[in-house]
Amino acid sequence: MYIERIESPSDVKKLSVSELEVLKDEVRATLLKKLSEHGGHIGPNLGMVEATIALHYVFNSPIDKIVYDVSHQSYVHKMITGRKEAFLDPEKYDDTSGYSEPSESEHDFFVIGHTSTSVSLATGLAKARDLKENKENIIAVIGDGSLSGGEAYEGLNNAAELGSNIIILVNDNQMSIAENHGGMYQNLQLLRDTEGKAECNFFKTFGFDYLYVKEGNNVESLIEAFQKVKDIDHPVVVHINTVKGKGYKFAEENKERFHAGGPFDLETGKPNSSNNSENYSDLTAKYLLKKMKEDKTIVVISSATPTVLGFNQERRKQAGKQFLDVGIAEEHAVAMASGLAANGAKPVYGVISTFIQRAYDQLSQDLCINNNSALILVYWASISSMNDVTHLGIFDIPLLSNIPNMVYLAPTNKEEYFAMMEWGIKQTSHPVAIRVPYYGGVISTGEKINENFDQLNRYRITKKGSKVAILGLGSFYQLGESVIEILKKEAGISATLINPRYITGMDVDLLNNLKKDHSLVVTLEDGALDGGFGEKIARYYGADDMKVLNFGIKKEFIDRYSVDKILKENHLTAPQIVADILNSFR
Amino acid sequence: MYIERIESPSDVKKLSVSELEVLKDEVRATLLKKLSEHGGHIGPNLGMVEATIALHYVFNSPIDKIVYDVSHQSYVHKMITGRKEAFLDPEKYDDTSGYSEPSESEHDFFVIGHTSTSVSLATGLAKARDLKENKENIIAVIGDGSLSGGEAYEGLNNAAELGSNIIILVNDNQMSIAENHGGMYQNLQLLRDTEGKAECNFFKTFGFDYLYVKEGNNVESLIEAFQKVKDIDHPVVVHINTVKGKGYKFAEENKERFHAGGPFDLETGKPNSSNNSENYSDLTAKYLLKKMKEDKTIVVISSATPTVLGFNQERRKQAGKQFLDVGIAEEHAVAMASGLAANGAKPVYGVISTFIQRAYDQLSQDLCINNNSALILVYWASISSMNDVTHLGIFDIPLLSNIPNMVYLAPTNKEEYFAMMEWGIKQTSHPVAIRVPYYGGVISTGEKINENFDQLNRYRITKKGSKVAILGLGSFYQLGESVIEILKKEAGISATLINPRYITGMDVDLLNNLKKDHSLVVTLEDGALDGGFGEKIARYYGADDMKVLNFGIKKEFIDRYSVDKILKENHLTAPQIVADILNSFR
Repeated sequence: MYIERIESPSDVKKLSVSELEVLKDEVRATLLKKLSEHGGHIGPNLGMVEATIALHYVFNSPIDKIVYDVSHQSYVHKMITGRKEAFLDPEKYDDTSGYSEPSESEHDFFVIGHTSTSVSLATGLAKARDLKENKENIIAVIGDGSLSGGEAYEGLNNAAELGSNIIILVNDNQMSIAENHGGMYQNLQLLRDTEGKAECNFFKTFGFDYLYVKEGNNVESLIEAFQKVKDIDHPVVVHINTVKGKGYKFAEENKERFHAGGPFDLETGKPNSSNNSENYSDLTAKYLLKKMKEDKTIVVISSATPTVLGFNQERRKQAGKQFLDVGIAEEHAVAMASGLAANGAKPVYGVISTFIQRAYDQLSQDLCINNNSALILVYWASISSMNDVTHLGIFDIPLLSNIPNMVYLAPTNKEEYFAMMEWGIKQTSHPVAIRVPYYGGVISTGEKINENFDQLNRYRITKKGSKVAILGLGSFYQLGESVIEILKKEAGISATLINPRYITGMDVDLLNNLKKDHSLVVTLEDGALDGGFGEKIARYYGADDMKVLNFGIKKEFIDRYSVDKILKENHLTAPQIVADILNSFR
Repeated sequence: MYIERIESPSDVKKLSVSELEVLKDEVRATLLKKLSEHGGHIGPNLGMVEATIALHYVFNSPIDKIVYDVSHQSYVHKMITGRKEAFLDPEKYDDTSGYSEPSESEHDFFVIGHTSTSVSLATGLAKARDLKENKENIIAVIGDGSLSGGEAYEGLNNAAELGSNIIILVNDNQMSIAENHGGMYQNLQLLRDTEGKAECNFFKTFGFDYLYVKEGNNVESLIEAFQKVKDIDHPVVVHINTVKGKGYKFAEENKERFHAGGPFDLETGKPNSSNNSENYSDLTAKYLLKKMKEDKTIVVISSATPTVLGFNQERRKQAGKQFLDVGIAEEHAVAMASGLAANGAKPVYGVISTFIQRAYDQLSQDLCINNNSALILVYWASISSMNDVTHLGIFDIPLLSNIPNMVYLAPTNKEEYFAMMEWGIKQTSHPVAIRVPYYGGVISTGEKINENFDQLNRYRITKKGSKVAILGLGSFYQLGESVIEILKKEAGISATLINPRYITGMDVDLLNNLKKDHSLVVTLEDGALDGGFGEKIARYYGADDMKVLNFGIKKEFIDRYSVDKILKENHLTAPQIVADILNSFR
């Protein structure tokens, strides 16, 4: 096999074009074997096999620098740049990350996980090259939905003016995670239909030189195109027409499902394990579909991750014009939600914790200053969700909760979640966000919650005790229950348990009352401590005799961690918390 | 005068076109009189006189809804919609804000101050209209540099797909605050040159219908164009060619200086008062120009506000390719800075506090996860800077300081600022931001500071005392000095004064040492308390006997406030702080 002899891109350059054709098949088979056994990003990598081989055949990495947008399509790049064992040897499958990673290889320049960043990063590399009077090629690989994000546009707008070498490789696979959304994608269609000849050309409007490659999964065509633009002295876009999931029948047929996922059966394309347990995505979609039928002004918004909200293709169809996927465009999603609310509609925007941070200014300016009543559902906000450094779910509390006017709610179970959602949709006084529980899965108490949440910042005492009070926020409420139990058993302390419910404000009366018969308040939050909920409680009691212990995650970028290990390191197991509590009395 | 009879847009509709011509002159004269006496946004409003009159002549506000981007060009709109007294009567000049304001009028739909938001907000209004099966026109007015921001692109991309009425009025005045930057502006040039006929059309690439108006300062042409698109059943862009500063010689000649400013002499165009005192913008530019000469890899970046960094036209010319204005594109600025650092250059990005929040995700993902050594200078970060609700300078500490890897420094005076900048440029280990002092102006101690700041999170005790320790952060350090003085005089307490210098970390040793002979730690910060610096100190001492008092601004959107009043409300005068300290001992 050729692939076993590829130690670096120079080994690719030694092959003939017909040998590259064999290599390409080997690479694809290797990808499919690993991905079917291990899971990962499937469609994006299958579509980029030929382009990646051609890039390394023509360009001289790492002198020439390739920046992959989102970088979840960089698996083939990793195989070619000295990391093939992580694809060939099942024992080593986890030796590389799923994204580009400078600590792994000199061929990687950035850790990248969010979309639409490559052009700006590459423009920086190119400008630095110019200042140093060097001559290398700088290549940004963008596509697979990334063109819809505003940062990509800001990057294109500025890259076009660079005045020197920068090559933007647009991987046009006609898809985002789900289908593409946005008028600009019709222009890509026009360019494909006219084989790049249409005068009305999105890239040319910026001033880019432009080259179209019809056969984006043909190594020879790609090599020819890349040779044309190599060492070019001005900005150019190379638009390649590829097939997402290329070469694997099931992935070509169902591009959305095969964007990424866990292990699957190569023969049938079926996932090895199907999780049929109750989950909040599914429950939310069912609930919202029902609400939408009752109220035609409810509109559910997603920014390219509809299934996180439970809206699979069938449900999107059912929802019709009341469901809106804006593509990877979180800024637009938040601002549009504000506009919808301002004109009397009821927007519900569902978004993953790590992606809501792409819209801070819109949350503050477009939404909260205007105090419009959009509802935002924040998913996967937990140390136990995605564990890639670029996708951490622990920064949403600092981000959202320090914005004035925002009401950020933390339900502790299923019943509370739906009661809060019901209120969030109905009320018209505040921008409301709900931190959808994650840690611990769907927990049902069976309790019927009828109350509305109009009276802001009322915490709820669920067990009255003394000496120690535990504020168990959101999905760490159950951790609080465990702490209470152990405290009782081990130290005979009958502690108070509190469900704060509101992340964005203090229940001053309740906190004051605690002073009567408590000497320690403990906060538990499933997120970063810095800028979070607990610190506000510490500030509140700062000048009192009340002692405060804040439990949460320390400020740090962590990557591919074991949840148990991180919980332990941060003293977040119930026995550790009890030990710290008892320690504080010494 | 006609203007005195305009109570609402219906009064505009009663006028003949020749009467509108007179009205237009009256409006412009009124604008010039007020602006020369009062200050405000000059060029943007002078250029929009005719378009605003024509909009209200043709459309039926507030049923038809007009959304102004940035909204600093909405003065004429305000005059026409019942708020003319705030322009005619000097006593009432401050009765309206400088931005659109729903609390002032039913003709305003959003408070808007940051750029590039109008299309997304308008798309929300339009979608809500469709869900309610109404028929009104929705108009977004964008231009004056706003098209360079990513949110505008995300909005355009989605608005184009709306499938129903939305009218995007592109006010092409060929300017941003300074000159426009970005490839797309060359397309606007092409469209102007071809009177809208070029096939390569930025707006058409999204699928918009398109109409060009050559005479964007001609009421009749505009009325004709607006009548054509009124009640249109699909998305359309109306591209109008206007002159920024139209009708006032000095503003047409010097568009950058007349973008906005204080009172000026109508006859000569000269500012009434010139501030010749030492300021950090000027000092910074001088310093950076010198450094750039010594090191060709230093590159200074601005996102459309070059003069905030002291880089006026002459200095930009001097800096040559080492100065880069990316237009209103903060996301690109941060990502590009990271790319520059990754390829061995030394980027210095200067940005206003309220605008750095437009790039949270880029700060976190592109810059800090990659731990690249860009230097960011954060200007106007103070309760005493801009006092419009959309431009508050008090949220940068919560925003920046809770991101891992970021080193955010708070210099207390001129010497410290430059020592930190020197280190920030030289070091290659961290992303560094400096909170440029604002409150209190330029304070010089004459002290020579040679140290480097490699050892992170070392606070500096500047006056050793006991019982009470004051942590005076950044430009509130001098407030700390006053507190110390009064404490001594009034209560005989010889307190410790500390300059924390580092916002992003705890000096654990120092804080621990304080426990020996202090019982109260006081933090002072010129910013929002929630998510800020003081809360971290409160958390640190949570389980100790040490009491902590945090002083800063409470979480709240405040508008056109008196600084003194807000300081008092937040107990931020030295006597109030002393009183609170003494109170805490009772």
